[in-house]
Amino acid sequence: MSHYKVERLKINYKTLEEFQKFREYGLQELSMLEDLQANIIENDSNSPFYGIYLDGNLIARASLYRIDAKYDRYFDPPQDYYELWKLEVLPQYRHRGCGTALVEHAKSLGLPIKTNARCRSDEFWKKMGFIPVKYDPVRDRGENPYVWTPPGVSLKE
Amino acid sequence: MSHYKVERLKINYKTLEEFQKFREYGLQELSMLEDLQANIIENDSNSPFYGIYLDGNLIARASLYRIDAKYDRYFDPPQDYYELWKLEVLPQYRHRGCGTALVEHAKSLGLPIKTNARCRSDEFWKKMGFIPVKYDPVRDRGENPYVWTPPGVSLKE
Repeated sequence: MSHYKVERLKINYKTLEEFQKFREYGLQELSMLEDLQANIIENDSNSPFYGIYLDGNLIARASLYRIDAKYDRYFDPPQDYYELWKLEVLPQYRHRGCGTALVEHAKSLGLPIKTNARCRSDEFWKKMGFIPVKYDPVRDRGENPYVWTPPGVSLKE
Repeated sequence: MSHYKVERLKINYKTLEEFQKFREYGLQELSMLEDLQANIIENDSNSPFYGIYLDGNLIARASLYRIDAKYDRYFDPPQDYYELWKLEVLPQYRHRGCGTALVEHAKSLGLPIKTNARCRSDEFWKKMGFIPVKYDPVRDRGENPYVWTPPGVSLKE
């Protein structure tokens, strides 16, 4: 579906340096850096991030975090699913299918996916086959949750 | 501290029309609109949003949502606090203190506040007296939480 190769990113100094180019760089990335410096995690450990390289440079990334079924408040029956966040393509590489490749990769893992569609990205997520949930103020707290479900999975009423 | 007047926003068609000018317009706003259309909420009900008007137009807004102490995973002792989200000033009115006025208003309510500092806004939040939490992957799930505490409130270890 795409000519981009999606790779699971390793936690090492090179990856964390690449992350600094992205807009959504924050406590999660700093925490990974600190853990690396303190030898709490190994160099080249697997991270929750997936990405696309072009000529050796990271140009797009997303994080996929597996949520245990017991915390599921979106799907019926309750089940393990992925939260997808920090989907970001560097500005000069947008509109070439990198975002689509990352989302298709996430879907290929076979579990439902929940994301927070930010900054009026609703059309992108709908194109990716995601649907908006019915907003629940207590659960969603200002988020804009969109979900994708594999066959046989429904949304919680 | 600021010459801007912060008002609690009413849920009515005018407010929801004003909301369309903001970048973070999504399921929360659509849900309010549907509730209004279905008469589930009254016209002119209080919303969780606060805002600033200039010449009759809404130019800045933020949502403050009170979280019950039993769900508190940030403060010690656990207590009611506010989650602040969708702090946004329309582009042409930025750098005049509107964001500061909204945050000062939130602080004046006397409870701790938690926000998600997005898009490298860390310096703004630090200037507002907020501090970054220690990132917890299970709790924070890719967020960039910054908190403000009134005297006598500590961060959970």
